[in-house]
Amino acid sequence: MRAIVYQGPEIVAQRDVPPPQLEHPGDALVRVDLAGICGTDLHVIAGDFSGIQPGAIIGHEFVGEVIAIGSAVTRFKIGNRVMSSDFTACGHCRWCDRGDHWECQERAFFGTGTCFGPALHGAQAEIVRVPHADTTLGLMPKGCSDEAAILLGDNLATGWAAVERGMLLPGEIVAVIGGGSVGQLASLSAQAAGAGAVVVIEPSETRRAFALANGSLAASPEDARSLVDRLTDGDGVDLVVEAVGAAATLTVGFGLIRKRGRIISVGAHAAESWPFPLARSFANELTLGFAIGDSIRLRPRLLSLITTGALDPTVVVDRRVGFAGAAQAYADLKAQKIMKAVIDPRI
Amino acid sequence: MRAIVYQGPEIVAQRDVPPPQLEHPGDALVRVDLAGICGTDLHVIAGDFSGIQPGAIIGHEFVGEVIAIGSAVTRFKIGNRVMSSDFTACGHCRWCDRGDHWECQERAFFGTGTCFGPALHGAQAEIVRVPHADTTLGLMPKGCSDEAAILLGDNLATGWAAVERGMLLPGEIVAVIGGGSVGQLASLSAQAAGAGAVVVIEPSETRRAFALANGSLAASPEDARSLVDRLTDGDGVDLVVEAVGAAATLTVGFGLIRKRGRIISVGAHAAESWPFPLARSFANELTLGFAIGDSIRLRPRLLSLITTGALDPTVVVDRRVGFAGAAQAYADLKAQKIMKAVIDPRI
Amino acid sequence: MRAIVYQGPEIVAQRDVPPPQLEHPGDALVRVDLAGICGTDLHVIAGDFSGIQPGAIIGHEFVGEVIAIGSAVTRFKIGNRVMSSDFTACGHCRWCDRGDHWECQERAFFGTGTCFGPALHGAQAEIVRVPHADTTLGLMPKGCSDEAAILLGDNLATGWAAVERGMLLPGEIVAVIGGGSVGQLASLSAQAAGAGAVVVIEPSETRRAFALANGSLAASPEDARSLVDRLTDGDGVDLVVEAVGAAATLTVGFGLIRKRGRIISVGAHAAESWPFPLARSFANELTLGFAIGDSIRLRPRLLSLITTGALDPTVVVDRRVGFAGAAQAYADLKAQKIMKAVIDPRI
Amino acid sequence: MRAIVYQGPEIVAQRDVPPPQLEHPGDALVRVDLAGICGTDLHVIAGDFSGIQPGAIIGHEFVGEVIAIGSAVTRFKIGNRVMSSDFTACGHCRWCDRGDHWECQERAFFGTGTCFGPALHGAQAEIVRVPHADTTLGLMPKGCSDEAAILLGDNLATGWAAVERGMLLPGEIVAVIGGGSVGQLASLSAQAAGAGAVVVIEPSETRRAFALANGSLAASPEDARSLVDRLTDGDGVDLVVEAVGAAATLTVGFGLIRKRGRIISVGAHAAESWPFPLARSFANELTLGFAIGDSIRLRPRLLSLITTGALDPTVVVDRRVGFAGAAQAYADLKAQKIMKAVIDPRI
Repeated sequence: MRAIVYQGPEIVAQRDVPPPQLEHPGDALVRVDLAGICGTDLHVIAGDFSGIQPGAIIGHEFVGEVIAIGSAVTRFKIGNRVMSSDFTACGHCRWCDRGDHWECQERAFFGTGTCFGPALHGAQAEIVRVPHADTTLGLMPKGCSDEAAILLGDNLATGWAAVERGMLLPGEIVAVIGGGSVGQLASLSAQAAGAGAVVVIEPSETRRAFALANGSLAASPEDARSLVDRLTDGDGVDLVVEAVGAAATLTVGFGLIRKRGRIISVGAHAAESWPFPLARSFANELTLGFAIGDSIRLRPRLLSLITTGALDPTVVVDRRVGFAGAAQAYADLKAQKIMKAVIDPRI
Repeated sequence: MRAIVYQGPEIVAQRDVPPPQLEHPGDALVRVDLAGICGTDLHVIAGDFSGIQPGAIIGHEFVGEVIAIGSAVTRFKIGNRVMSSDFTACGHCRWCDRGDHWECQERAFFGTGTCFGPALHGAQAEIVRVPHADTTLGLMPKGCSDEAAILLGDNLATGWAAVERGMLLPGEIVAVIGGGSVGQLASLSAQAAGAGAVVVIEPSETRRAFALANGSLAASPEDARSLVDRLTDGDGVDLVVEAVGAAATLTVGFGLIRKRGRIISVGAHAAESWPFPLARSFANELTLGFAIGDSIRLRPRLLSLITTGALDPTVVVDRRVGFAGAAQAYADLKAQKIMKAVIDPRI
Repeated sequence: MRAIVYQGPEIVAQRDVPPPQLEHPGDALVRVDLAGICGTDLHVIAGDFSGIQPGAIIGHEFVGEVIAIGSAVTRFKIGNRVMSSDFTACGHCRWCDRGDHWECQERAFFGTGTCFGPALHGAQAEIVRVPHADTTLGLMPKGCSDEAAILLGDNLATGWAAVERGMLLPGEIVAVIGGGSVGQLASLSAQAAGAGAVVVIEPSETRRAFALANGSLAASPEDARSLVDRLTDGDGVDLVVEAVGAAATLTVGFGLIRKRGRIISVGAHAAESWPFPLARSFANELTLGFAIGDSIRLRPRLLSLITTGALDPTVVVDRRVGFAGAAQAYADLKAQKIMKAVIDPRI
Repeated sequence: MRAIVYQGPEIVAQRDVPPPQLEHPGDALVRVDLAGICGTDLHVIAGDFSGIQPGAIIGHEFVGEVIAIGSAVTRFKIGNRVMSSDFTACGHCRWCDRGDHWECQERAFFGTGTCFGPALHGAQAEIVRVPHADTTLGLMPKGCSDEAAILLGDNLATGWAAVERGMLLPGEIVAVIGGGSVGQLASLSAQAAGAGAVVVIEPSETRRAFALANGSLAASPEDARSLVDRLTDGDGVDLVVEAVGAAATLTVGFGLIRKRGRIISVGAHAAESWPFPLARSFANELTLGFAIGDSIRLRPRLLSLITTGALDPTVVVDRRVGFAGAAQAYADLKAQKIMKAVIDPRI
């Protein structure tokens, strides 16, 4: 079958590879109808994650149709159309029982090497093998497009996690640092959860324009504080969502937060250590939290928002390609020429 | 001064009355810039409430300017523009300390007789005396219109109380029974808090049209269940808000709710008893709650929503009169020709 | 194998019956090490529930060892020691995904006829078949006794559900109406969750003495209000737990609750209708809710309390019999001579 | 009148000073019946806080009787017995309206210099002036001893703040770092809120013994991880309370926390910066929060716990002196020979 594979640092290519087989009773095979390219995939092809091998199929966002199931799969039948979490979880351990699927010992992250669990081929392919299918997959309901389901499986779950962990109250003012796909979806999530105002802080004028066109305010990093001051009479925002994953943007967040405010980071941080503003955090009773999207837990809530039309995540998709266009889409995503690309194997 | 006074059952008239004086150290006198006519006032003039005396000034919704303060008033100065709660609270008893101001032993409800506390002249007048001013009043911030502040003081606080007590989660489906001012503001509150969809259930076509024009769905009582079934795949809604105050509409609510759903009533109920569907409520784990708006507790939250523009309650105001037009406004409100009237003493 | 079977109204007997077989891929067979007799079983043998057939095995509380699994069971292996929910749930429908297992379309309630789902033989037997074993069963952790696990599967889950649904805050005063096993476990749950004081209201002096010996206060129904008044300066309690399942005890609850208080019923109500105190519930902003224990959702939380020793539910067990002693235990439970009996097949 | 005053670094002495007068309409004068010596006072006399002047009266914990009130005081009468918050708040600003009294612009911290607001004489005196008395003071209810009220005003409010901000769930495992008065009261708070187990981590054997005698487990810093591993099967604790106020103990906390756990610091941190474990906090989705006790907001909740006997904070008081014994008590507290001292002006 055709697939997008990692060839080596910064080299990604379409290749013909053997199709996957069922390996465990809980496995399903899914024929991919649509796959996403994620900012995380840029880290994968940059070689930032350990254990990624040449020949590994990339991609952890997909929807499709179940074409084979193992003997322990009870939730799905062949022919079911399904969405997927970006990582697998067993559904039955003490972590899964509490809804903490990311901490599941059986976690495997599609197409990202061995950094986050055992290697597992990704979904930018005609067929993908899905371990623990009963937990990892969800049925596609009516009213949820393929693009929406792709986003629910990762970027939207991440954006929403910030709002949930940040315990946003209706009417509060939110600053989202970073205007990529996750940041924009955090912004839409905050709006859907009743934020009084959301400011997307982003150096790119294009991405600020996107935020403005989708219900948020926007500011460059230089102008952020003055806009926040106008909105909050100088108090600072109630909630900061850091959606970049850098120490520098965390520091920006501490510069925008009000007393007793919350800073939630949903960016992936690689730095071992960071100089935390200790005395000030104590004096102002600040909270700093980190959240990773868990689309398995969040699926019912997010589907309610999507199928009622209260939140439309698909606005971020601005490139649709076949396998042949994938390499260019990777390049354009890296250059920030596009925000979110999806691969349709049938193109 | 001029004021709208209760003359006897169904008789309301403009009269010249002596202006109020400061009576206690915590009192303030407020020159009324705008007063509201509330559905509750229809009960007042119908004589439904005990203890209303001919000559009593009606009205419990107002904004204005502080023109005198007692020696114990510390929060306000003469000249401050203020909004008000529809009832007074001391701010310092064990109920107020917990935020349960409606239960305050010092509660008095402006212009409604002695049913809800000691008699206190209302606000449809040029000047109103405000006991416990430090707690009962709030400063008008920039970005909040007089109409919005009037609604915050009662109808919006009531509508929001339904959403708060109902613990609405983003994406949930809500049915609001009753399309008057409180029902419409409950609907806007639910939208602002992230409801996936809101259905206003109301026999009046005009009021259904209003709901549709303001972001909700709408159905007549006869069509409600079929619309709810379509929206929820036959499950029923997550939250019912009963905004009429009748046993019959409570029963309608039990006909629309899903298993494990919540029914919150914010209508004023006078019936002693009502046949509660016991076996079904147990089997389906239902919750029934009653909530009375508390604009003192809710003021910071509602002001955030209003001043950011996330919720505009003023859409319900469809009549603005001077004292001379008040009697006609009462009649039109009773006939459901209008939804919400305000009195501007300067007209 | 030996089992306790329903023979007809009020007739329960030990019989030799064919052992169960695996019927579906998700089934497990469990060799029962200990089974409970529940107050609900008294309803079963009274014939109160529809669809119970002579020959049906009774009992829905058990722990034991997995002796056979279907091909779709992934969570357990033969030899695992397990506890069980009193009802089955698929684990994968839209209700289960939200944690509302009781509403699962695949629900079957062990040994209770067809009132709550399809007929399913009970657990007062040497072997029990468990549908949807991956969801219905849980592993026995170290530090949890068989008796504790039996209670976690039903009575304790029910008692805790009252505290959870009642949103008990530390320091609040609770009245529990009914001093049987569920009421006593609701009382222990409230204590474990930080109640300031718990009053068990119960006519039986023996059961009041039990409550007093286990950390609660106690009063007869006649003395309840005066004790509550002393504890609350006449306000009434913050939370009432109705653990009987009768309209009369609900009415008692409304006589004890403070303004803005919550009344949660975990008793099984059969009455179609009940005269609800409407005007007063509105004026005092009361909440009435019904909750059914869900040991699947509550298992991690309750196991934490049990294994740390913070809550010891086993104090209620006051009879341990073999199959031969079961009929007498049923009779003694009905006569309120005992509070909770367990059956050990090995005796 | 007699008072304990700051004379210079590490010099504290009893002096005769002029009694305070009412200065503002919201002031009350309180005749002190009991005052506390707090760990914070050790910082005061060490000169750690800016703006403390020789001659300043120390102390921010007290109970007593109202002997004079300004014209704007409505909550209290002369003769009322009262407890106090350790800092003042106006009760009417936008921060106070939200319950964030510590952020009030009118905040003054009794007896601590100008570090936390304008200078205000402390309470280790025969009489203390209390600004904003209506908000700062609370009535002493029956069932609350003077010692308990002193602790409610600061140390217990601080300990409870950790539990509240940490959103402790019943059954969770808690580690409290630091076994002084605040740490021990955080431990008692966690127990009262339903913790499954609490481990006090403290180098002093005496303080560990105190923890063991009062319902907690205890470990030295060296043994902490192995005890936590035994309790949690190697996962780490659900909640860490850092009650020392040092970067080093924060780091200890990060070594004990489970994935998705919360670390709440209620110690006062003076260090500008601290190397925060960034990559790990992201990977494990940790939360770090800082909380300052707010006895004004927490008073109703804590009084419920105290007056019902659910939580007895007075166990920490191990020294009771008159003014003459105060200097020695300071020395013994600094040397950790005692845990909590109170001064009775009548001794």
